[in-house]
Amino acid sequence: MSFPAPLTGVVPPLCTPLTAEGEVDTASMRSLVEHLVGAGVDGLFLLGSSGETAYLSDAQRRTALEAAVAAADGRVPVLAGVIDMTTARVIDQARMAKEAGADALVATAPFYTLTHPAEIANHFRRIRAAVDLPLFAYDIPVSVHSKLSRDTVLALAEDGTLAGLKDSSGDDASLRRLMVQLRERGLLERFAVLTGAEMVVDCALLAGAHGVVPGLGNVDPAGYVELYRLCRDGKWAEAAAAQDRLAALFSITDFGDADGSMSRSASALGAFKAALHLRGVIACPATAAPQLPLSDEAVKGIRGLLEKAGLL
Amino acid sequence: MSFPAPLTGVVPPLCTPLTAEGEVDTASMRSLVEHLVGAGVDGLFLLGSSGETAYLSDAQRRTALEAAVAAADGRVPVLAGVIDMTTARVIDQARMAKEAGADALVATAPFYTLTHPAEIANHFRRIRAAVDLPLFAYDIPVSVHSKLSRDTVLALAEDGTLAGLKDSSGDDASLRRLMVQLRERGLLERFAVLTGAEMVVDCALLAGAHGVVPGLGNVDPAGYVELYRLCRDGKWAEAAAAQDRLAALFSITDFGDADGSMSRSASALGAFKAALHLRGVIACPATAAPQLPLSDEAVKGIRGLLEKAGLL
Amino acid sequence: MSFPAPLTGVVPPLCTPLTAEGEVDTASMRSLVEHLVGAGVDGLFLLGSSGETAYLSDAQRRTALEAAVAAADGRVPVLAGVIDMTTARVIDQARMAKEAGADALVATAPFYTLTHPAEIANHFRRIRAAVDLPLFAYDIPVSVHSKLSRDTVLALAEDGTLAGLKDSSGDDASLRRLMVQLRERGLLERFAVLTGAEMVVDCALLAGAHGVVPGLGNVDPAGYVELYRLCRDGKWAEAAAAQDRLAALFSITDFGDADGSMSRSASALGAFKAALHLRGVIACPATAAPQLPLSDEAVKGIRGLLEKAGLL
Amino acid sequence: MSFPAPLTGVVPPLCTPLTAEGEVDTASMRSLVEHLVGAGVDGLFLLGSSGETAYLSDAQRRTALEAAVAAADGRVPVLAGVIDMTTARVIDQARMAKEAGADALVATAPFYTLTHPAEIANHFRRIRAAVDLPLFAYDIPVSVHSKLSRDTVLALAEDGTLAGLKDSSGDDASLRRLMVQLRERGLLERFAVLTGAEMVVDCALLAGAHGVVPGLGNVDPAGYVELYRLCRDGKWAEAAAAQDRLAALFSITDFGDADGSMSRSASALGAFKAALHLRGVIACPATAAPQLPLSDEAVKGIRGLLEKAGLL
Repeated sequence: MSFPAPLTGVVPPLCTPLTAEGEVDTASMRSLVEHLVGAGVDGLFLLGSSGETAYLSDAQRRTALEAAVAAADGRVPVLAGVIDMTTARVIDQARMAKEAGADALVATAPFYTLTHPAEIANHFRRIRAAVDLPLFAYDIPVSVHSKLSRDTVLALAEDGTLAGLKDSSGDDASLRRLMVQLRERGLLERFAVLTGAEMVVDCALLAGAHGVVPGLGNVDPAGYVELYRLCRDGKWAEAAAAQDRLAALFSITDFGDADGSMSRSASALGAFKAALHLRGVIACPATAAPQLPLSDEAVKGIRGLLEKAGLL
Repeated sequence: MSFPAPLTGVVPPLCTPLTAEGEVDTASMRSLVEHLVGAGVDGLFLLGSSGETAYLSDAQRRTALEAAVAAADGRVPVLAGVIDMTTARVIDQARMAKEAGADALVATAPFYTLTHPAEIANHFRRIRAAVDLPLFAYDIPVSVHSKLSRDTVLALAEDGTLAGLKDSSGDDASLRRLMVQLRERGLLERFAVLTGAEMVVDCALLAGAHGVVPGLGNVDPAGYVELYRLCRDGKWAEAAAAQDRLAALFSITDFGDADGSMSRSASALGAFKAALHLRGVIACPATAAPQLPLSDEAVKGIRGLLEKAGLL
Repeated sequence: MSFPAPLTGVVPPLCTPLTAEGEVDTASMRSLVEHLVGAGVDGLFLLGSSGETAYLSDAQRRTALEAAVAAADGRVPVLAGVIDMTTARVIDQARMAKEAGADALVATAPFYTLTHPAEIANHFRRIRAAVDLPLFAYDIPVSVHSKLSRDTVLALAEDGTLAGLKDSSGDDASLRRLMVQLRERGLLERFAVLTGAEMVVDCALLAGAHGVVPGLGNVDPAGYVELYRLCRDGKWAEAAAAQDRLAALFSITDFGDADGSMSRSASALGAFKAALHLRGVIACPATAAPQLPLSDEAVKGIRGLLEKAGLL
Repeated sequence: MSFPAPLTGVVPPLCTPLTAEGEVDTASMRSLVEHLVGAGVDGLFLLGSSGETAYLSDAQRRTALEAAVAAADGRVPVLAGVIDMTTARVIDQARMAKEAGADALVATAPFYTLTHPAEIANHFRRIRAAVDLPLFAYDIPVSVHSKLSRDTVLALAEDGTLAGLKDSSGDDASLRRLMVQLRERGLLERFAVLTGAEMVVDCALLAGAHGVVPGLGNVDPAGYVELYRLCRDGKWAEAAAAQDRLAALFSITDFGDADGSMSRSASALGAFKAALHLRGVIACPATAAPQLPLSDEAVKGIRGLLEKAGLL
């Protein structure tokens, strides 16, 4: 398929369903893709943070991506996270993703090592040159511990290195300033700004973003599709109410780590998977090692919020 | 005056005009208050970060506050920052602020020392008990290096310790979740949520915030008053355009530290003061020691953006 | 008294004894000074982090400092922390400290606000010019959230602004490199390097530091005096064993926050005060608000470790 | 070879020599191994931070490790970093390292994702169970953004999961307390504590550490071997002087990023490689992409310090 420029709409970062033994459950992946495409999403983002990509072996990443590409069957574009420490390793991931059928790539700045804006720009340019697919920058300081500067993104948008930005920085002030600068340069016509800030999608779209990559969209894709439609139609008050409903639902992620017994990752990703399991979409709610599993009590709390939201 | 509950609208955090020798320029403070009240702002926030409160001696703080109270003359409420490290010191600041005529107080969590949520709640309760004025919590992790948790704010809103929140955390996702939780408990009727996120005011108001505390509002108060009015009237697309204009104007803050030669504080606060000076509101653009002054070239850049914005 | 250049030896950062009502207990302060001077310490550091300076009002700071100066009675020099956000405020603190009889001043980099190396140097130079007492830089990133660079310290040592450094950065690699650079320039003859790293005093002295400012020295001053003597005499293996004993004793600070119920500050400072109370040095173990008090169980644990160390 | 328990002495983290095209230069790797073994080092640590492991593809990692194992030829043990985000990925790295002939493995806590002490312990236990080689924990908060707690290390030392710790935390106070606790439990007899704090090796060994993993040991292995010998023989004053000499030499790492034009990684690793090139050990000083290369002027500065140190 020809890749949309700019990409717009709801592009959920898919959870990667696992078996109890920790292997990729391709049947559940197919079911998840149907759940999402059936709800009207505009693209699928595989192997992102919500996909537990940090926890998957290379073989598991490939299995998950191939299953999703097959299930999507060209109905919506498939973006693949190519998450690794630096350039050479990311390029290996990118080659694999292209072979597996991805339509576009999503890469972060270097991590684990110390880096520099000039080296970050060098990094993205080398990735783009090595593998011929549209490339998105993934701005996720909570994981990589540096923030993409507006100047870096502007330069890489202007020279065509990047097809877009997936902003999970949570820095909405900086994102707003970036969008103003992109618009001044005429770049918002072809450079996609996708927000990962799933609690304030109405705000990001009001400010001019093209779409959203909501982890919670695994659980309630129809909710995000409706929210996007309301924003696109300029029904902002209704959009805000729809967003508030999803913000309340997001509390499913708080049960696991409320007592400090597990990581935020295990609590949030565990909640998405527990909800998908309770909704009958995936066969098993297991998260990958070394994350700890949710308690029965946490799952009970999640069930309660899903019922309140009319999702069970 | 009876203090509004909840407080709403545009409440700029006033710059503190200084003479070339570094003393508070009370004549310029009066002029600044007229500039703001004349533009239609709904309140004045003295001795906040934009007011260089961290740089002012106790005597200077008192002089600045008294001058602003006198100039405001009851036309709009005056909030005073009571910024110090921990409880006993903040209470001393609060007593001074009350004597100087402040209508409400704004305090942060403890800083310099390590703290804990239970100690933060204890801190606010003791301040409220010691000085009888409405108390706002100032959530500003960039300065105090801890974030107020939603649970702490909810508890202090519910028991009446706090009259509101001034959110400068930049964490709009958390703020959205807080507002949803305040609304569920009926607290948004009396507990004011004011955002310091001056780049995304449209978003915060769409999400239900009551008002904004914009540093850039020193420079263009009419711009923020208009933005607020558009939001209140539900003209969201026009509001977004107004916000975009202000986001472009905010680039005045980037000239000073573009080459890494001074702090972000000196660059941003220096820009607000240079702009007020260029607009004829204050007599001298000096910032407090040990901040370095802007170069002539930086001031030239600021002048250019003000002209582009129609403010000169 | 003429102030030693460079200052050497054991200079404990005194706890500030409080009454149950939270006021400074000057009788206990006198007792604490006798406890320390009697053990052979070389100086007293008032109003540092261990002195809860962040928690004391200006009046309380002055009371505590005057009581210590009177009790020391010229037997050892008294250094005073002048801890406040930026230059003008620190100069006010410094004037008070001089009036109260301090022999030297200890100031941090600016905090609460964002700062820059050139502004930090400006800050120290202005303080030194305003109040004529020997000035020490207090490098404490955990509180002020910036680290003094080696270049800044070298410049301020070379031009005579600083009489020394109190290093609580915990960055021993950087401190080692600084000492090598100070020695190359002949500055170690007059510029005192005091470490706050009370767990590795043997190491700092082996590397060439002049002395130590140990919070735990409130509890066991004789232990630190002995450790210093062993180092000075080149008995390094014995020094290491003495340090190990003190490192084991430091576990008294871990009882309070082991369950996450209070801040690290409350746990550590509470432990020092509980130990001083158990040893009969001060009348009341209370820490300042908003810190929470230690549980009875925590105090029991502290008692056990003191007994094991032969201090009860 | 039977792996020493505990491992002691000087174990340099080898640079990975690259060609101008960015491929692993196995001839230079052999030369580097001879340079180090000839100087008397006690082990070789491949694929650590100094080895640019974050920058190497899996194929490059394997090539580098195999070349080093072949060159070492059983004369000293070879430890291999198995650096990846979480458990499944690290286990894949560990299997590769075992096949390539490593004698022991060195793994960090999970990174990129948020983690928790209980998940970190789970992580190390799963790695140890999956691949039967001695396992060292690599505590490197600057890269992984969490610090291994003393409790976690003690538990994993006690149950035999870990053969030792490579401490690059720079937190010498915590390390001292850990060593005291290990000694109390009799664990220092078999659990190796290796410090990465190459500026304060005398201190770490005085405190009881077994050895050192010095990046600068690539450049001056004989210097570190001599430093270790002096420490082992209790000649502490001479050891401190030897350490000071190496601390002065470490300034070679400061030329590249002095003007802020590249990352600290590029500046420091570039300096090690430039020095190895100038000393005739490796054929090409190139570092891996996306790091920027040192300027000619920086290399000139490095040459000057090497001459001063008698290494050219």
